[in-house]
Amino acid sequence: MLSYEQFYSRSAKSMKKSAIDEILRLISKPGVISFAGGLPAPDLFPRQEIKGIAGFVMDTEGATALQYGATEGNMALREQLLKFMAKEGIHLTMEEIFIITSSQQGLDLVAKILIDPGDVVLCGRPTYVGAIQAFHSYQAIMRPVALDEGGISIDGLERELDSLINTQCKKPKFIYVIPDFQNPSGITLTLERRKRLVELAEKYDLLIVEDSPYRQLRFEGEPIPPIIGLNAQRVLSIYTFSKILLPGFRLGWMIGPKELIKKAVMAKQAADICPSPFNQAIFAEFIKRGLLEKQIQKIIVAYKEKRDYMLDRLETYMADIEGIKWTKPSGGLFLWLTLPDPLDATEMFLNAVEKKVAYVVGSAFDPEGTDRRTMRLNFSYASLEEIDKGIQRLSEVIKEKLEQNQVESPITP
Amino acid sequence: MLSYEQFYSRSAKSMKKSAIDEILRLISKPGVISFAGGLPAPDLFPRQEIKGIAGFVMDTEGATALQYGATEGNMALREQLLKFMAKEGIHLTMEEIFIITSSQQGLDLVAKILIDPGDVVLCGRPTYVGAIQAFHSYQAIMRPVALDEGGISIDGLERELDSLINTQCKKPKFIYVIPDFQNPSGITLTLERRKRLVELAEKYDLLIVEDSPYRQLRFEGEPIPPIIGLNAQRVLSIYTFSKILLPGFRLGWMIGPKELIKKAVMAKQAADICPSPFNQAIFAEFIKRGLLEKQIQKIIVAYKEKRDYMLDRLETYMADIEGIKWTKPSGGLFLWLTLPDPLDATEMFLNAVEKKVAYVVGSAFDPEGTDRRTMRLNFSYASLEEIDKGIQRLSEVIKEKLEQNQVESPITP
Repeated sequence: MLSYEQFYSRSAKSMKKSAIDEILRLISKPGVISFAGGLPAPDLFPRQEIKGIAGFVMDTEGATALQYGATEGNMALREQLLKFMAKEGIHLTMEEIFIITSSQQGLDLVAKILIDPGDVVLCGRPTYVGAIQAFHSYQAIMRPVALDEGGISIDGLERELDSLINTQCKKPKFIYVIPDFQNPSGITLTLERRKRLVELAEKYDLLIVEDSPYRQLRFEGEPIPPIIGLNAQRVLSIYTFSKILLPGFRLGWMIGPKELIKKAVMAKQAADICPSPFNQAIFAEFIKRGLLEKQIQKIIVAYKEKRDYMLDRLETYMADIEGIKWTKPSGGLFLWLTLPDPLDATEMFLNAVEKKVAYVVGSAFDPEGTDRRTMRLNFSYASLEEIDKGIQRLSEVIKEKLEQNQVESPITP
Repeated sequence: MLSYEQFYSRSAKSMKKSAIDEILRLISKPGVISFAGGLPAPDLFPRQEIKGIAGFVMDTEGATALQYGATEGNMALREQLLKFMAKEGIHLTMEEIFIITSSQQGLDLVAKILIDPGDVVLCGRPTYVGAIQAFHSYQAIMRPVALDEGGISIDGLERELDSLINTQCKKPKFIYVIPDFQNPSGITLTLERRKRLVELAEKYDLLIVEDSPYRQLRFEGEPIPPIIGLNAQRVLSIYTFSKILLPGFRLGWMIGPKELIKKAVMAKQAADICPSPFNQAIFAEFIKRGLLEKQIQKIIVAYKEKRDYMLDRLETYMADIEGIKWTKPSGGLFLWLTLPDPLDATEMFLNAVEKKVAYVVGSAFDPEGTDRRTMRLNFSYASLEEIDKGIQRLSEVIKEKLEQNQVESPITP
């Protein structure tokens, strides 16, 4: 047999299958209630509308929708998105936006245009696992800074920056943040910290990469301005249709300073030439008909109910577990649970799957993989009935583990 | 204004807009007959079938088609493609195939898993411009070897390999070839050379990347086995739906040794998570209904007629131009024209556009950019009437240039 190891790039040598991917495989058994994936609720997908619009697009613009398109994306879709962003208070020109084949591609392109091997990226601990994969694939060094209930710690970032620049002569290229209903924690970055983050970027001459897949899925309270709204020069923002409409079309968009957008478009051309004109035409018409706003409202109502119910069930089944805690997100798809000492979420995972409930271990979201006590729970995919059963099962696993721990290591006076 | 240059990766610093992209912009004026793009004929797109199947997919599997999917692609589509490849004599398992978001992504992933900055890739001169972009974006050094009427010169490759390995201590990672109806030249690699190419890969311990976008579009003669059919261990082959069905879905597939496929799938996960499940479901059903074979036959009949007509018109309008020559491809979308000395295709380009005819300058397909006398002519997109007018206009431009040259630099005895 030929050994392929000798042919691999350094990037390939360091690649690992995503922990999430492995988890999803493990839990595909029947009967397992999964809080693991980041999947939107499929019963909300506007199937009939998509069917109708796909037919309409074939009838009215089939020749262009089935052909190659511009690398920066379909003009009609970009126009709709400029209006969509304007409602958020972000006013852009056509040169400041382009269409990406999923927000994951946005992360890949950002890394491609900004990262050389060994470059440092600052990020939250925890942070989105797909960003870790994308940045690592360009051999970035990721330096995580802890989150608290207000989001990533700005003091922590400043300490890390000082240490990197002053003692290691290593200036990071950018800070990566997910300000709204962060994946995996569900935490939202406060306005005051957004402002300080921008000041930090100016002071240390850095860029900010703002990943915003969940921003529109706010269940309550006033929206906080996106970071790009606070500084248009230093921020690249990545958006996706996956959570506010559907993931099956693999479409998102990136906005930012036109020089950076131009570079990212060039990188995209070499990566896949153009986003699907067919899929773009359908989404452009979907937004034009006013259906996106309605879809977002529908999703918010459904996910809010599920979040409320998951919080309620956690309270019901776990309030008596000393030392356990979980976040209470105001939007998005996830909450973050911290087990009481000395439980280990990774160690407990197989017990949970045995009891037919699944989560993602927190270590998957830690660039250094050291976090052992946490887990991500998704509330968008499971039904209310499953949420009830699943949280009950999870509480039983935790309690059993705690009992085992007490037997195994009795507290001696 | 903030200067972004300081933030760019080395890859970004070296990125240029594709020459083709610039050309396509330049020639979008009304009335210009374009032989420049590599666009399929839009009148052949099966719009009604796609419309019907899109509706069928929404009715029967909307929940999965609009959701996230597996990184390696939709099982139904991969099954159909295994059968499709089996008809080519290539028998594969599920682990030896995965779905890519366009063959351009295939090139990007190949580079990502195999290329470190400074690694050498051998390729033809000329070769596909998108491959140059993709490989350059990973900072590969491309060493072109001339093509003749039998395809890439194997002797030339061996000389280059000897020189690289023995005098420069630089072993290339792989040889990149487009064996059938090569883009841009239309030339097909002979069976004897395919065999020698494989021997060369074995002798020098290299991989081969076989790019096969046009293979099924053979107008006459017997198909020559794909290179992967001659050696399953050392070849990664990239296929796409763009030319045999339609480009607007951005889908293709890659086949090869399972270890390499596994790595490429990991790289794809970090690049865009998964190909569009919606688009894949439509294509799977399209093939299942037996429509792909019919579509390919329809395309072959139409493109053969266009190729015949373009060759006929070239003969009619240009046979009297001394020193001019063009290839006579047995399939695909392109032919390759070499101007008589001392004409320069790049210099002549604006004159051509003034006369409302366009082509792609040969230098775009030369990794070193030195080729000045050649141009690529696409025969799939223009109508027969446009082919007649366009080739006539082109002949006039060439003849005028030749006359100007004679006036400007008279031949002195």
